[in-house]
Amino acid sequence: MTGEKDKLDVVAMMRGIGLAARAAAAELARSDGELRNRALCEAARLIRERRAAIEAANRADMAAGETRGLSAALLDRLMLDDVRIDAMATGLEAIAAMPDPLGRVLAEWDRPNGLVIQRVSVPLGVIGIIYESRPNVTADAAGLCLKSGNAVILRGGSESFRSSLAIHECLVEALRRTGIDPAAVQMVPTTDRAAVGYLLSSMTDFVDVVVPRGGKSLIQRVQSEARVPVIGHLEGICHLYVHESADAEMAERLAVNAKMRRTGICGAAETLLIDRTAAGRLLPRLVGALNDAGCAVRGDAESRALCPTVLPATEADWSTEYLDAIIACRVVDDIAQAIEHIGHYGSGHTESIVADDEAAAARFLAEVDSAIVMHNASTQFADGGEFGMGAEIGIATGRIHARGPVGAEQLTSFKYVVRGSGQVRP
Amino acid sequence: MTGEKDKLDVVAMMRGIGLAARAAAAELARSDGELRNRALCEAARLIRERRAAIEAANRADMAAGETRGLSAALLDRLMLDDVRIDAMATGLEAIAAMPDPLGRVLAEWDRPNGLVIQRVSVPLGVIGIIYESRPNVTADAAGLCLKSGNAVILRGGSESFRSSLAIHECLVEALRRTGIDPAAVQMVPTTDRAAVGYLLSSMTDFVDVVVPRGGKSLIQRVQSEARVPVIGHLEGICHLYVHESADAEMAERLAVNAKMRRTGICGAAETLLIDRTAAGRLLPRLVGALNDAGCAVRGDAESRALCPTVLPATEADWSTEYLDAIIACRVVDDIAQAIEHIGHYGSGHTESIVADDEAAAARFLAEVDSAIVMHNASTQFADGGEFGMGAEIGIATGRIHARGPVGAEQLTSFKYVVRGSGQVRP
Repeated sequence: MTGEKDKLDVVAMMRGIGLAARAAAAELARSDGELRNRALCEAARLIRERRAAIEAANRADMAAGETRGLSAALLDRLMLDDVRIDAMATGLEAIAAMPDPLGRVLAEWDRPNGLVIQRVSVPLGVIGIIYESRPNVTADAAGLCLKSGNAVILRGGSESFRSSLAIHECLVEALRRTGIDPAAVQMVPTTDRAAVGYLLSSMTDFVDVVVPRGGKSLIQRVQSEARVPVIGHLEGICHLYVHESADAEMAERLAVNAKMRRTGICGAAETLLIDRTAAGRLLPRLVGALNDAGCAVRGDAESRALCPTVLPATEADWSTEYLDAIIACRVVDDIAQAIEHIGHYGSGHTESIVADDEAAAARFLAEVDSAIVMHNASTQFADGGEFGMGAEIGIATGRIHARGPVGAEQLTSFKYVVRGSGQVRP
Repeated sequence: MTGEKDKLDVVAMMRGIGLAARAAAAELARSDGELRNRALCEAARLIRERRAAIEAANRADMAAGETRGLSAALLDRLMLDDVRIDAMATGLEAIAAMPDPLGRVLAEWDRPNGLVIQRVSVPLGVIGIIYESRPNVTADAAGLCLKSGNAVILRGGSESFRSSLAIHECLVEALRRTGIDPAAVQMVPTTDRAAVGYLLSSMTDFVDVVVPRGGKSLIQRVQSEARVPVIGHLEGICHLYVHESADAEMAERLAVNAKMRRTGICGAAETLLIDRTAAGRLLPRLVGALNDAGCAVRGDAESRALCPTVLPATEADWSTEYLDAIIACRVVDDIAQAIEHIGHYGSGHTESIVADDEAAAARFLAEVDSAIVMHNASTQFADGGEFGMGAEIGIATGRIHARGPVGAEQLTSFKYVVRGSGQVRP
């Protein structure tokens, strides 16, 4: 139980963090892009230099996680080795190398009265990031926020708390050395869950938007408690739809890659839909290839009749994000039923059609209402890096402000700049 | 008091509205822009044709409002005459004449692996509009939502309920005649305030964003109750800052227009800031012109010492949206203090600098963090129509999704369309 005194402490602490973030955000909004890039490169250098300290902190997190009985999947997310630490540093350098997302003239036009109007990109302000077990989010998220001139309040999960703190120290030291207010990147220095509640419900004066990165329970908490604006990240129940016109070899290649390249990412396919007219020709080959790759297939009665290795699927399978070597499989009447299935069971993340028929592809791309729709490509391309955005905080499944991969550009707002010569409105 | 039975009725009614809106939104998202334009023009025609019925409904609202003792300002907002009814119809036709905001390719690029990525505009989905006494918002908001392919749930104020219903009937009939699902434009058929609460807190599955248009009490209610995303519209505490380099004649013209052209709109200036070095030269002329135009000036000690007609200002004046022939006036040390004052007391709406000095103007435009910043122009230009957007729902003062004038384009989201030839992710 959290006592009354602890609660007051959390409130005072969070308000202090909020005030400092606001001040840092005002400074960052006026800062030079080159200065922010220098801080990013310095942070990368410090992460490499302090590799031993980060690894020691991570070993302590891993030991605590093993004692607490965390699953192998969670422990893998938590683990930092040389490769992952290098990836964090390289990621920060890649963010530094991207074009400045601020001060871009997004649109410009003249009015008949001589006014010249520009829409110019500016930072969002203060961004709250709530994340779970992956400590590398500390560097990735802070890097993208800094690049886009936003102050950030990081609230990492308790499992990765020591690792995240060690990474955070590198970021803060880089800010100090570059002459940027260290409050530009703050980490909530407690694992008290009350801090998350206060951030979501009571910091509307201090936080412009919250980006939650995590599983269902975090998302549900955010949806029920948030009064601050949220850039939502639901799960990825991604579909691969094999149209009757699909090329057999391409369908096989895309199905295996979409599901099995990495099963734990949100762009991994979770459901395979296939036209009835193509199921006899294609499904045994697809199921065979998936089985050979180590994937279990759970299907409806029609798929099971065609392929004896298919296990029975229940209604729950259509809306399950396995994040594992399991795929659900359903035979559909036609493209209309495929689109309907996706609208009903999907999470609005990423869906792909395999088809030679261009008209069918055009219909799928137009009518499926997801953040990312694809034709003849693996759903695993749903990734800011693969989109050429340099890096991403995640794939937004909401429709407000950002949708799809959220990179530095998506962490900006804009303002209108109007230049006149003394015009008054009639 | 609302009884338990009434509460259940409101819940059932609102869920029914939400379900119908979702279905209509799915249909609208696939609809042709020409069809939506035909519905807008038919609605304009019907509003003109049914002028007598709308005026009769408005007379009933006005009579009830007079009985309830509404202020003259509120009664003026409520009143519909021939000119205002024509303006509604013309507004719908202007919206129809605008380019289609949907299906625009906002960005397009290739990846080294051959994938072609497009960002394409799509509707937001279902939009809730909560407004107060102006019945013309019924037509304006519904028109913009329909233009941008969104279903809309309108919740007008109780004062204008009959007028809004009469206008709503024209919109619904126009949808019917055009063959669009009439549930694309629904109006909450009750003035029960519980309906607003339910819309804000419990309809996240049915409503993608709420746009509140109204005074402080509505905005506060929205801020404390909303779980659905909100495109926020705070009040407009707009500043006109007269720099020491300002031309005297231009400063006078802009001050009188920014404050007095119409005092009741959110883009009206509420505070005049002036450099100390220019106050002796300019302030008596500005105060004289404002007084001659019928405006009361409330100022700090320095303005009062220079101009005997200036009344004393209190701290509260700096954060008051008068919407009346009153302006607050403060002498500042320099541009830095002007920018600081605006950051502290402003509402992030619209601010303008009067200056011949280009460097000062550039600094003001860069450093003032408001939705609209202006140089040598009247703050009354803060308007979607004056910006060339055709029409607007309002001026957003939030930073998420939309900022500044909210027109049809700002009521869209986007999705990514990825075209490949069988690519898999390595």
